[in-house]
Amino acid sequence: MSIRIGIFGYGNLGRGVECALRQNADMELKAIFTRRDPKTVRILTEGVPVLHADRASDMKDEIDVMILCGGSATDLPVQTPALAKLFNVVDSFDTHARIPVHFANVDEAASASSHTAVISVGWDPGLFSLNRLYGGAVLPDGKDYTFWGKGVSQGHSDAIRRVEGVANGKQYTVPVEEALASVRRGENPELSTREKHTRECFVVAKEGADRAKIEQEIKTMPNYFADYDTTVNFITEEELQKNHGGIPHGGFVIRSGRTGKDLENNHIIEYSLKLDSNPEFTSSVLVAYARAAYRMYRKGDFGCKTVLDVPPALLSPKSGEELRKTLL
Amino acid sequence: MSIRIGIFGYGNLGRGVECALRQNADMELKAIFTRRDPKTVRILTEGVPVLHADRASDMKDEIDVMILCGGSATDLPVQTPALAKLFNVVDSFDTHARIPVHFANVDEAASASSHTAVISVGWDPGLFSLNRLYGGAVLPDGKDYTFWGKGVSQGHSDAIRRVEGVANGKQYTVPVEEALASVRRGENPELSTREKHTRECFVVAKEGADRAKIEQEIKTMPNYFADYDTTVNFITEEELQKNHGGIPHGGFVIRSGRTGKDLENNHIIEYSLKLDSNPEFTSSVLVAYARAAYRMYRKGDFGCKTVLDVPPALLSPKSGEELRKTLL
Repeated sequence: MSIRIGIFGYGNLGRGVECALRQNADMELKAIFTRRDPKTVRILTEGVPVLHADRASDMKDEIDVMILCGGSATDLPVQTPALAKLFNVVDSFDTHARIPVHFANVDEAASASSHTAVISVGWDPGLFSLNRLYGGAVLPDGKDYTFWGKGVSQGHSDAIRRVEGVANGKQYTVPVEEALASVRRGENPELSTREKHTRECFVVAKEGADRAKIEQEIKTMPNYFADYDTTVNFITEEELQKNHGGIPHGGFVIRSGRTGKDLENNHIIEYSLKLDSNPEFTSSVLVAYARAAYRMYRKGDFGCKTVLDVPPALLSPKSGEELRKTLL
Repeated sequence: MSIRIGIFGYGNLGRGVECALRQNADMELKAIFTRRDPKTVRILTEGVPVLHADRASDMKDEIDVMILCGGSATDLPVQTPALAKLFNVVDSFDTHARIPVHFANVDEAASASSHTAVISVGWDPGLFSLNRLYGGAVLPDGKDYTFWGKGVSQGHSDAIRRVEGVANGKQYTVPVEEALASVRRGENPELSTREKHTRECFVVAKEGADRAKIEQEIKTMPNYFADYDTTVNFITEEELQKNHGGIPHGGFVIRSGRTGKDLENNHIIEYSLKLDSNPEFTSSVLVAYARAAYRMYRKGDFGCKTVLDVPPALLSPKSGEELRKTLL
């Protein structure tokens, strides 16, 4: 019997989950929930109902795991605890500093109603967190490095678009090659914000706008750009659509550590992602953890979990026996 | 209270575990067991007894986890099931094809005596297996690649030394750069054995030996070299000691997969290791899993496990709360 999945929120992430479910034969999409008027929402999967978010509780007995696809700023802090009272849930809450509070809220709801919740699933937090954990546990005398990119930062792209005279824009976060190379050589450098990443902006200016002023305003914007070496390229809307239409991302987690009698041997563990579509990849991780959430629920392992708590084998549709035979 | 560890077998791996334990404040070395005459064995840690292997059962109540440091060919198939009757155990059994049988034997012993065993711990099998699992679960439509090296293969070095006229020798397994590059570009190539790795040999010839004949014999050796592009370099014993004295290794696990409505987006997940000392790194992984084994035992989770079954958080000395706050 397949695992019955609900999608709560139908933006980039929700569409990604819908696609990912087709790649997992043991899972079945039962319903998509939206806060918009369901009649206005077109989905890819034939025969699956689109329901208003308010009607989630009606589907309580027909959905094994609800995958939450809302945003971390205002949606998930409310939605995940609320839905964890009714369903097993998985979310991609990614406001790092607020994870402990979110965890506590979701844990209370899920534990009280005997459900399993897995929060902060994706790649960072998510697969990157796992690699920081494995790296640190194996090489306790060492140093962690996380680099992001090359990839589109939605927050920084939004910031560009708020600048006066800007019609459209996109921002790439780019890791500094020399910093990466130094880390890989085991030099354990201390790196400032500026030394780790550069910011590359592609900007469509409004007709008659003062480009020098736009460039200056972007480059000196506090929090977003002032601490980085930033380049601003002016292009046309057509170029933006043609060459910068995707949502690629990625990054690197590197652990550099020492072992031996006198810590004389150096080791480098490197994990990297190169993603054509940031939301689709995140969605694929969510779907794998939905499988794990359901299995933990079936074993009576209730409450809130993160990727750090989930036994890896639960992510795969294959049996333990098959995994040992083929992957180990 | 710290976790009390025994080391069973004191070669490269056992010495590596001894060193790694010093880097983990929550663990304590209680005894080292050897099949040699204990009086002839010098260890690094003061005040720790060296006991004969036959006396392991005397220490039954003073050791929380026994870390087995023998070889996979003949030691571990016998030792791990035997010791799992008395202790929680961790081993690095790495004969991939025989893992299912070893698992069954250890599971029977550990389950019957209510102990926890974790087998096949290290990097391959081990951390590489984990990455094959995570990659496949997240990107089901994709392809796995594992490359080894650059690193010393003990088996191939031994094979060289058995050739007539050879005084000493060392063999490096080297991944083919162009094959790696193609995989990283998402081209999903089909790669033959020859296209994935080359073999680089450093050979010390005996005085008056026929070098051309040695080279020919190495390059055509079935199973070991015949299927690879092999280079043979003749050097002096001094050069061998000076430039090839270490036991470095490493490798790459790459998952290349597609997502999206029409599988139009490609993603690359890459995990790599660059290790100055293969045995010391393996030892460090063993020690982290010894911590996990002890915690699973304390929770009553008995029987045989592999890295695929162990919740990642159990590897770290930090609490779940601290991990969520700092790593997630």
